Amino acid sequence: MDKLISKIRDIPDFPIEGIVFKDITPLVQDPTSLRLAISELIKPFKTKNITAVAGMEARGFIFGSLAAWELGVGFIPLRKPGKLPYDVQSVSYELEYGKATLEAHVDAINPGDQILLVDDVLATGGTAKASCELVEKLGGQVVACAFVIELALLEGRKQLENYSLHSLVKYS
Amino acid sequence: MDKLISKIRDIPDFPIEGIVFKDITPLVQDPTSLRLAISELIKPFKTKNITAVAGMEARGFIFGSLAAWELGVGFIPLRKPGKLPYDVQSVSYELEYGKATLEAHVDAINPGDQILLVDDVLATGGTAKASCELVEKLGGQVVACAFVIELALLEGRKQLENYSLHSLVKYS
Repeated sequence: MDKLISKIRDIPDFPIEGIVFKDITPLVQDPTSLRLAISELIKPFKTKNITAVAGMEARGFIFGSLAAWELGVGFIPLRKPGKLPYDVQSVSYELEYGKATLEAHVDAINPGDQILLVDDVLATGGTAKASCELVEKLGGQVVACAFVIELALLEGRKQLENYSLHSLVKYS
Repeated sequence: MDKLISKIRDIPDFPIEGIVFKDITPLVQDPTSLRLAISELIKPFKTKNITAVAGMEARGFIFGSLAAWELGVGFIPLRKPGKLPYDVQSVSYELEYGKATLEAHVDAINPGDQILLVDDVLATGGTAKASCELVEKLGGQVVACAFVIELALLEGRKQLENYSLHSLVKYS
């Protein structure tokens, strides 16, 4: 994964002082690294009969749609409130300060669908856990959650202990 | 393009009364239609030595990253203010009510890069024109702007008269 790590840029003090943000834009701009990332991201799930990939707004749209493409399935966008135009199902969850909500179209998932959740970074796991709940609320089954980056110190893995988890690059 | 049209859903009165919103989520959820859309979107540009695809947050991330993937080049996210963590270049533009700003990382584009701009919908053309200006401000050349949908009544094409324009489905 050294090739991937070399394309992830540390940005000190973003979005707030004391946080070192992992910037994936150099990876996304480099087609060779991007192919490696997507290939590794989907590798464990090629034989799992995934029926769709769901990805969280906005960077999850990049990795999620490419993972769906390579798995030969459709992509389901999970969005912030008010962005999806049709009838939605939603899940609200606690952030460090305040609340957030994720929405999906009510017809995005059919009962029994086997969903792979994809995002760029697993941090505290709040968004990922809410995404799993949203998929389940619509009758889908979360086969696994896959992330390019896992910020292990933030213990997002604990939030997802009921789910299979796959991450490519771990930072402690 | 009837296959694509059948996967674009009309949503009356979204986001405000009197607007019929074109919902592309059914298309994105259907891998066959999505493959057709991406294949047609990039067809005119396969021999144009495109060096990167740029796409606008957030639905442009889906079509843009897939177009980049299929062209074998990198993807450059154009984002709303404050979302990109590294140093940015930006372009502000007028909306019907108020202003908007688009940002790109200063190292996202190199002088002489041949950029294909991709978004889901061409409406009034304000965002697309600002995106072209942003690419040029960074030294890139806009080879063309490609859209899945063109809302011809809104005359976005006029805003982009200095650029090559490609759209798959036109609504008058």
